[in-house]
Amino acid sequence: MAPSNTNPVAVADEVLQKSRVTVVGSGNWGSVAAKLIASNTLNINSFHDEVRMWVFEETLPSGEKLSEVINRTNENVKYLPGIKLPKNVVADPDIEHAVKDANMLVFVTPHQFMEGICKRLIGKIRKDAVAISLIKGMEVKKEGPCMISTLISEILGISCCVLMGANIANEIAVEKFSEATVGYRENKEIAEKWVRLFNTPYFMVSAVQDVEGVELCGTLKNVVALAAGFVDGLDMGNNTKAAIMRIGLREMKALSKLLFPSVKDNTFFESCGVADLITTCLGGRNRRCADAFARNGGKRFFTLA
Amino acid sequence: MAPSNTNPVAVADEVLQKSRVTVVGSGNWGSVAAKLIASNTLNINSFHDEVRMWVFEETLPSGEKLSEVINRTNENVKYLPGIKLPKNVVADPDIEHAVKDANMLVFVTPHQFMEGICKRLIGKIRKDAVAISLIKGMEVKKEGPCMISTLISEILGISCCVLMGANIANEIAVEKFSEATVGYRENKEIAEKWVRLFNTPYFMVSAVQDVEGVELCGTLKNVVALAAGFVDGLDMGNNTKAAIMRIGLREMKALSKLLFPSVKDNTFFESCGVADLITTCLGGRNRRCADAFARNGGKRFFTLA
Repeated sequence: MAPSNTNPVAVADEVLQKSRVTVVGSGNWGSVAAKLIASNTLNINSFHDEVRMWVFEETLPSGEKLSEVINRTNENVKYLPGIKLPKNVVADPDIEHAVKDANMLVFVTPHQFMEGICKRLIGKIRKDAVAISLIKGMEVKKEGPCMISTLISEILGISCCVLMGANIANEIAVEKFSEATVGYRENKEIAEKWVRLFNTPYFMVSAVQDVEGVELCGTLKNVVALAAGFVDGLDMGNNTKAAIMRIGLREMKALSKLLFPSVKDNTFFESCGVADLITTCLGGRNRRCADAFARNGGKRFFTLA
Repeated sequence: MAPSNTNPVAVADEVLQKSRVTVVGSGNWGSVAAKLIASNTLNINSFHDEVRMWVFEETLPSGEKLSEVINRTNENVKYLPGIKLPKNVVADPDIEHAVKDANMLVFVTPHQFMEGICKRLIGKIRKDAVAISLIKGMEVKKEGPCMISTLISEILGISCCVLMGANIANEIAVEKFSEATVGYRENKEIAEKWVRLFNTPYFMVSAVQDVEGVELCGTLKNVVALAAGFVDGLDMGNNTKAAIMRIGLREMKALSKLLFPSVKDNTFFESCGVADLITTCLGGRNRRCADAFARNGGKRFFTLA
């Protein structure tokens, strides 16, 4: 590490210039993201140590508030039990308070809540804030599909990157090796800052200039996983499953390029593409639902194995 | 179907012009290939009905010859038991006799036998013969790696395409849906003829002009499957396995392009690429060996599950 600056004015400047991160969301993936980020902010000088995490407040069966338990035990006992969060993660149930000092906003909530959350944050965030979305999914409006990163950008008037990949949260929580892809629109420097914030020895992040391609990979793979689940449920075998996944990947590419001609073929070779598709088609919830649906003769009522 | 020609001279001409197919090899995949091909030669006018299949003669425990049992029962009782072959598949234990009338040679033997077989066939095949190789693997000589299709082309002085894909033979034998990729060097017409010969409603074949790319996919995927097996044997989880498969695919691409700069990125999106990689990393023998090896603490002696 570089020696600390001993000039008090320069130190104050450095503190002011340090980036402050807030994670908006504290579910399973949000808590793991906070863990990853907080391990880096402690070690990289250009970030403030503290990582604020907005918690949608809940009262636990014990009568305690979730945010208080997280701050007392350094553990999200409801959504990531058994995993210690670094002490520099601070749970905050007040969303406006949580975001007000941050210039790096990490959005990781269920996608259907994003529009409401963004509208609530208008005028409440720093002017120099930038965002990244870890949310998979899109809003389909009358005018056509709207990517979540676009929603964030348009409502809040800030730049928004995305991070997607073969990322089963609980495996990352126990530090099993994973990769992820950051998609950015124009500003490579901001993308590299996000990479520095997330990258760890067990979570290898790379950036590609294709925000829509990366985000559509994370969204459309779930459709292919449904097809893969039907193949499993109908006992059609591994050749057929591999064919369905391949054709699915090709169709993801074709649809993405139809929606956004700037989407690049190579994005589908990144973790957000072929790797996430593989993970989701092997074990994901959509695959399991479609499998159970097919085994149940196409009736809607079934229980997941 | 077009009405038959009733002019006797034209009929004789048509018979002479019909392509005759011989499958060189009668193991598991060779027998399934003969089944696929023979269903097409019966229905497509430009091929002779009969498909000759060279059988490396063996005496069965019953004392009968394998080739005789195949011809009597229409079943390769040793390598594809339980599957009826079309009656127009004729097993022939004499390799020179099997190939002498054929102008379409389908090579599907273990790769280590190919050099010997090709040398034995010099001067014994038709001048207008063309070949296709279903053999995965390469010869590594002092001068460098030599693709099997190149070996066939160079020793026999004939054009050689390849056919690779996510093709577990027993699944195709029971007509579960699969895809495959034909790789060709220059002559698109010959490639299209191979596609017509192999393509069925349950075996969908497409052609790409990239013989080395397709063949290297079929060869190198086994190396990646070893890595995938180690990941399984070490219980490293699905994120890591997907990452290893993705990085493996990228390395397959990089090595292929280093060996043959003409190799195309898009080939890795075909059945021979990403789909065969998926199938092999899920269930293939190399994956299972590496899995058992890792679970056995890296000792060489283990039994396959």
